[in-house]
Amino acid sequence: MTTLDDLPLRDDLRGRSPYGAPQLDVAVRLNTNENSYPVPDAVVDAIGKAVQAELRDLNRYPDRDAVALRTDLAAYLGHGLTPAHVWAANGSNEVQQQLLQAFAGPGRTALGFGPSYSMHPLLAAGTGTRWIGAHRDPDFGLTPASALAQLEEHDPDLVFLCSPNNPTGTALDPGVVTAVLGAARGMVIVDEAYAEFARPGTPSALALLSGHPRLVVTRTMSKAFGFAGGRLGYLAADPAVVDAVQLVRLPYHLSALTQAAARAALAERDALLATVDAIKEQRDRIVGTLRARGTEVADSDANFVLFRTGADQRAAWQAFLDRGVLIRDVGLPGWLRVTAGDPAETSAFLTAAEEILP
Amino acid sequence: MTTLDDLPLRDDLRGRSPYGAPQLDVAVRLNTNENSYPVPDAVVDAIGKAVQAELRDLNRYPDRDAVALRTDLAAYLGHGLTPAHVWAANGSNEVQQQLLQAFAGPGRTALGFGPSYSMHPLLAAGTGTRWIGAHRDPDFGLTPASALAQLEEHDPDLVFLCSPNNPTGTALDPGVVTAVLGAARGMVIVDEAYAEFARPGTPSALALLSGHPRLVVTRTMSKAFGFAGGRLGYLAADPAVVDAVQLVRLPYHLSALTQAAARAALAERDALLATVDAIKEQRDRIVGTLRARGTEVADSDANFVLFRTGADQRAAWQAFLDRGVLIRDVGLPGWLRVTAGDPAETSAFLTAAEEILP
Repeated sequence: MTTLDDLPLRDDLRGRSPYGAPQLDVAVRLNTNENSYPVPDAVVDAIGKAVQAELRDLNRYPDRDAVALRTDLAAYLGHGLTPAHVWAANGSNEVQQQLLQAFAGPGRTALGFGPSYSMHPLLAAGTGTRWIGAHRDPDFGLTPASALAQLEEHDPDLVFLCSPNNPTGTALDPGVVTAVLGAARGMVIVDEAYAEFARPGTPSALALLSGHPRLVVTRTMSKAFGFAGGRLGYLAADPAVVDAVQLVRLPYHLSALTQAAARAALAERDALLATVDAIKEQRDRIVGTLRARGTEVADSDANFVLFRTGADQRAAWQAFLDRGVLIRDVGLPGWLRVTAGDPAETSAFLTAAEEILP
Repeated sequence: MTTLDDLPLRDDLRGRSPYGAPQLDVAVRLNTNENSYPVPDAVVDAIGKAVQAELRDLNRYPDRDAVALRTDLAAYLGHGLTPAHVWAANGSNEVQQQLLQAFAGPGRTALGFGPSYSMHPLLAAGTGTRWIGAHRDPDFGLTPASALAQLEEHDPDLVFLCSPNNPTGTALDPGVVTAVLGAARGMVIVDEAYAEFARPGTPSALALLSGHPRLVVTRTMSKAFGFAGGRLGYLAADPAVVDAVQLVRLPYHLSALTQAAARAALAERDALLATVDAIKEQRDRIVGTLRARGTEVADSDANFVLFRTGADQRAAWQAFLDRGVLIRDVGLPGWLRVTAGDPAETSAFLTAAEEILP
């Protein structure tokens, strides 16, 4: 049998495994930060009608520039943004890959402050970009001084910030974004996949876009909108950034069905985003309950919580799974991440946690 | 206003324009090799039902490995292929981009025989792969001897073949594929986007997969299936190739809607592929009519025809557009490409051709 070793695979890919959490058939799945609430019936009807209207003409390519969808996304974001400021793709991973292709790539570097979203270095590898692993503080925080010192040391072509940060959950001090914008020579991407879950008073980097043409804010409909299966990520930035991304995007990358379904979901945003408060309530319940029993927990502005397990997080992960609760081992020694689900899922997690955690 | 010049864009992208034919609002659109036949009502219903069944659970990520869809694609292809031999993505462009990321990229080279599909060098550029523009013969043919001589000269890491070749329309001599497979050190990709339109007796490279682990055949549902708006490309190859691609694919790249819609379209393939014979008839009508009036035309195994305009193909393109017929200037001096549409569209093209061509 032929194996990978027999093929002329790139050397830098040898020995790697595909990215992705185990997709296991477990009753309580709290491992990929999905929104636990199914799409409401009225929204199912609206998306169904919108998609149905596209089917007869599927023989034709979709609008390559997705202008109508970008118009709707700009209206959702506010901040005076227009379709020229917005770009969309099949998930924010594809948006970020396009940004790396345009502004990083071979001979250039990208820097991120770990622990952070583990796809950022993988996207860098996939685009031939050299990755620089900078660091957050031991408490997972990031101060402007630390960010600036590491920027100065490495002088990267592109910087990833992540706010709220995955997997730690805490939003960035706004001073960090401003400081990095002031000091960085290249592009600054703020990954705001979880922005809608932030605690009150947490500003979005969208407010900084005006006057900062090297700033890009990426978002997704996978989390707050409960649209993970629809695959729609997007960015907001100066229109010149959108021009740049169009030089590397695959033509017709967004299907007619994706564009129609995402537009319908955006039109129904009141119904979809109604789950956000319920999820934040469960998140705060997890944080509060675990802290009350003495477990260390990172502050969370997201729909998930990072908590201390004691030394062997792998054994703890397995113990949760043995109790029918699938959570995430993000490779951080002594810590695990759990998604805030619905009240019943959260109770299942907390019951298991009471048995498992020291 | 900020422009691209003010941003730290990669040097190799400066001065480029986004790929893509003009999307103009013209009565007769024969420029992007779409299938002119809308999706039949019965198939619209089937796809609609399949998509509808996914909507409630869009809050969950899709099957990352798209196993059910790959199973259906393998069954469609035949040749003893299984889901392990098949991979799918948002159009064959994304499939080919993933192949370049896995087997080419920075420090490696990809070679194609031009004139051929103009996205191949752009995909190479987007993945940091150095492109080597090899050549077809002046009559657009490619002999085994010529292919081997150019391979020997350049020794590329990856070779693109295209059969039927876009934009010339002619299928490759099967001896070329065999010869290239025997001589090439690296991967050999045969782009068969238009395979279903080939004239009788034209073999597919699928028949060569067994025993050739470095051969990859890419296909699309955009053309014969009339599914351009659904965005579904795929490949067939040794399972080790599929393992390699999974190291670079974006997680959850294929939406639940795409997977469901494509599966429904495959199940309805008798109805969808019923258009292929009608399209081939119009293609052969274009070839025959133009040749009868003395116009030079390349043999076509595809759903399009490349024909001689005389020296200034740009003026001819504009003259067709002025008559309401949008065709494609592929940048080949003295030639234009027209898609074989339905009988009325083909008549509109031929009427204009009679007025325009020398």
